[in-house]
Amino acid sequence: MAARLVQNSYGKSRVRLMKVERHGDHHELQNLNIKIALEGDFDEVHTRGDNSNCLPTDTMKNTVYALAAQTEQIEEIETFGLRLADHFLANNDQVSGVTIDIIEHKYTRIPIDGRDHEHSFTKSGGEKRTTFIEATRNARSVESGLEDLTVIKTTRSGFSGFKKDNYTFLPETDDRIFCTAVKSKWRYVSPDVATEELWRGVRQTILETFANHESLSVQHTLYAMGEAVLDKHADVVEISFSLPNIHCIPVDVTKFGESERHAIFLPTEEPHGLIEARLTRQ
Amino acid sequence: MAARLVQNSYGKSRVRLMKVERHGDHHELQNLNIKIALEGDFDEVHTRGDNSNCLPTDTMKNTVYALAAQTEQIEEIETFGLRLADHFLANNDQVSGVTIDIIEHKYTRIPIDGRDHEHSFTKSGGEKRTTFIEATRNARSVESGLEDLTVIKTTRSGFSGFKKDNYTFLPETDDRIFCTAVKSKWRYVSPDVATEELWRGVRQTILETFANHESLSVQHTLYAMGEAVLDKHADVVEISFSLPNIHCIPVDVTKFGESERHAIFLPTEEPHGLIEARLTRQ
Amino acid sequence: MAARLVQNSYGKSRVRLMKVERHGDHHELQNLNIKIALEGDFDEVHTRGDNSNCLPTDTMKNTVYALAAQTEQIEEIETFGLRLADHFLANNDQVSGVTIDIIEHKYTRIPIDGRDHEHSFTKSGGEKRTTFIEATRNARSVESGLEDLTVIKTTRSGFSGFKKDNYTFLPETDDRIFCTAVKSKWRYVSPDVATEELWRGVRQTILETFANHESLSVQHTLYAMGEAVLDKHADVVEISFSLPNIHCIPVDVTKFGESERHAIFLPTEEPHGLIEARLTRQ
Amino acid sequence: MAARLVQNSYGKSRVRLMKVERHGDHHELQNLNIKIALEGDFDEVHTRGDNSNCLPTDTMKNTVYALAAQTEQIEEIETFGLRLADHFLANNDQVSGVTIDIIEHKYTRIPIDGRDHEHSFTKSGGEKRTTFIEATRNARSVESGLEDLTVIKTTRSGFSGFKKDNYTFLPETDDRIFCTAVKSKWRYVSPDVATEELWRGVRQTILETFANHESLSVQHTLYAMGEAVLDKHADVVEISFSLPNIHCIPVDVTKFGESERHAIFLPTEEPHGLIEARLTRQ
Repeated sequence: MAARLVQNSYGKSRVRLMKVERHGDHHELQNLNIKIALEGDFDEVHTRGDNSNCLPTDTMKNTVYALAAQTEQIEEIETFGLRLADHFLANNDQVSGVTIDIIEHKYTRIPIDGRDHEHSFTKSGGEKRTTFIEATRNARSVESGLEDLTVIKTTRSGFSGFKKDNYTFLPETDDRIFCTAVKSKWRYVSPDVATEELWRGVRQTILETFANHESLSVQHTLYAMGEAVLDKHADVVEISFSLPNIHCIPVDVTKFGESERHAIFLPTEEPHGLIEARLTRQ
Repeated sequence: MAARLVQNSYGKSRVRLMKVERHGDHHELQNLNIKIALEGDFDEVHTRGDNSNCLPTDTMKNTVYALAAQTEQIEEIETFGLRLADHFLANNDQVSGVTIDIIEHKYTRIPIDGRDHEHSFTKSGGEKRTTFIEATRNARSVESGLEDLTVIKTTRSGFSGFKKDNYTFLPETDDRIFCTAVKSKWRYVSPDVATEELWRGVRQTILETFANHESLSVQHTLYAMGEAVLDKHADVVEISFSLPNIHCIPVDVTKFGESERHAIFLPTEEPHGLIEARLTRQ
Repeated sequence: MAARLVQNSYGKSRVRLMKVERHGDHHELQNLNIKIALEGDFDEVHTRGDNSNCLPTDTMKNTVYALAAQTEQIEEIETFGLRLADHFLANNDQVSGVTIDIIEHKYTRIPIDGRDHEHSFTKSGGEKRTTFIEATRNARSVESGLEDLTVIKTTRSGFSGFKKDNYTFLPETDDRIFCTAVKSKWRYVSPDVATEELWRGVRQTILETFANHESLSVQHTLYAMGEAVLDKHADVVEISFSLPNIHCIPVDVTKFGESERHAIFLPTEEPHGLIEARLTRQ
Repeated sequence: MAARLVQNSYGKSRVRLMKVERHGDHHELQNLNIKIALEGDFDEVHTRGDNSNCLPTDTMKNTVYALAAQTEQIEEIETFGLRLADHFLANNDQVSGVTIDIIEHKYTRIPIDGRDHEHSFTKSGGEKRTTFIEATRNARSVESGLEDLTVIKTTRSGFSGFKKDNYTFLPETDDRIFCTAVKSKWRYVSPDVATEELWRGVRQTILETFANHESLSVQHTLYAMGEAVLDKHADVVEISFSLPNIHCIPVDVTKFGESERHAIFLPTEEPHGLIEARLTRQ
């Protein structure tokens, strides 16, 4: 036998959980999508088909529902994720590491006559709150984040002075549309500070910086957003971004006999630029 | 030759258009996805490969950009769609009928210190405003609508007293979660009244009725929403709905040793119920 | 009350069924996705919340599994669909019409040393066999079809001599790439002849005609494919096609200093042409 | 200023390329989707908006088309990817590292009367050939792979003897359906041996092992597939797999009054197990 197992993990993906917290007629709602993966002493599961160390992934799914039912309150996803990770470590000697990914879909109460409804909601589009947890018997790492926050600014964005070679035909511009779907992850000084309120604060700082920045490139605005978050939120120690550049290409309407007013664009997601970076506090 | 052409149409789908209306620094934004289809005298295109009557679909795409550039203002999608339909009829004797589908992605200004930003926006999730236009040389039909407005209520919804047969195992309930992604189309007394403001009014009536209704079934709430729209908005003469029932199944946590508090649900989109109906004013 | 119910239907969508037919170790496999919709006497479900006529959509799902279990053999989807439709009509006086949509995912046996494996398969990509059934107490209509059969020819396709207007900039060509994802539905003289073998025959006629046709337009080839099917398969009385034109745009590599060899293309699915027609036997 | 840039990269994603190699009427076809990312001296792009080191992502896209046009022959994706990586390193002093991801969609010639057609093809479903390249000025790493190879076996698969806790309700079974969509990457002794023929050999070994294995778990079969590839293909030095467990749940049809024949299953992709491992030669 020539093969050696270098690395392995297994788990359950796309476990969906909806939790309702009831206060009379006033309800809270939480909608999660959870991924669990375990590492540990699983070599003989692979090499010999010996499953005695193999906790079924179906059990992992059940554990999500069981642990969610243990609290009446809706928890921050970082708190719930850590409880899950701790559970698998505490009850499975064969497990050395656990990773938990949680995506939370956001909801908004339906407003009626200026008042938020008690138990009816709209889903806030594609935007998600996320957490990513890695836990071993010695250390726990927690990241918080957001995904699919699509933003667009119609001016105060340019791209010029770039490097040119024989294949460069992109025109320089000092006024283009800047559209991206923000994906960001950050680390707090401690998971204990991970609250909805602080998450909303970071999100708002990202949005404000995007809106007000005099952008010279996607990278330039990415850096400004990261710097602003680190500057305004002392509990954030590190932040990373992944920003697709959803190009909005000006259509040359003069060839159709129309006068150019810099008004007509073709938005396109394929191909797209992709800009990524991570910033820490000095 | 044994074949006869019974019906045919052709056109361009997924034409994307972004339009910016500039008032100094205060900008308006519109992001559309447009589908065009033509019917008419195209038999010889099929049977003989004679393309002399065939306006290229690439030209249809260009026409979208050209006509969009003819107005500085952003138009209601119903108005823009009718201009497109009229253009193809007026300039193509071989065309007898035109259909135009437009999907508008909605945007919200980024709020900073309680004030809406001048030129920066977030995309309002999956929700869309739509129009569907059919135009011939004799008649023009215009429908307005919305799609992917995902709503959920965590109580005041039941389903009981239904018909049972040998394959019926669904428990009756007087308190379930009701989740759907509203798709609706309606017809105004005239396309001239199709404004963003009225569209928002219809949308709000749908939301309020969904939130406040004591629902005995999806059908029951569908009808209540349609009735409310016809009741409150005199300019709407007909409305149809297509409502997937996105089931949120209670998880029996008692088998995990937890006490039942009607709090833990499994949301699932597959399979799903699908409820459809059309209502008119009496 | 001002509202009147004009039309309504309800049912279950995306019911997934996998069936295995076992002959010792030699197994047959069928993977279906089923949609059911009922029309009938459901007005009071909507208007009064009276569910006594409302067979739950959960029961429709169960019916799929129960009826599938009644036969050991894997059936043609047309046969199974008709059994489903007949069941709902026979057992529900309140139902006047049933529609059944079935999508079958195709599988291929894994070949080992030139022999097909007894019980192991690969999924044949996106291609699907379909049926669409409408049944009332008086009539039954059955269509068979295929979807997502993506084909491409790299020559023997042109598009020229088309109508031009001020917005036409498309160059004429006598040698372009022609790529489409065939969607087709057809009607047999009787559902009784709907076999896998005949379905494969129609599919092969479509493929051969696409491959060998000297195409002057998508319409031209669509018609040729329909004519060939009607010509070769006497049991087919009508056929319709929906053909997206997945454009493969020649890239002008001369501006990069390379010589033009008509070799480099940009395939794009957005926007795309869409060509549709229905043909019958004379 | 409190922020420090820890890591960054940028590039172009979803660049689509179709290449045709013409030998008279006999044509070869290649359809690729390419992702490029660069690392290097880009700090001032972020911190100061100085773009002088920033090669536009639009230029990266053009480079794909230019380099593809430099050869008449269709190349193995590993060869083309390495040419791309080398180009960016050779022409950009500011670049320290390049990653290239290529996905190749597979095509099959349309068979007519037992003969493959010269220039007409069908797309072979979702299955893809892939390569992933990392290149710096000192080292080049190349991985080859495949994705979305969906396979299913209807017997010779069990799962029993697993670890149980309070949340374990999964029944043990010695005869279940095993369905997965194989994603695999492997490393050759040298990129020079990366040919279509060897890729097909590895793929066939994976398929045969899947088909013939007496599976005690997904992990067990994963290991057997990796071991077989390392055993039969001396040029492969390492292989990894990512296998979703697409559960096919037996439907209890006895409650519908039908006899159990282990024939009716509910396939579901949500939630799913996910099993991953990497194997090397001893």
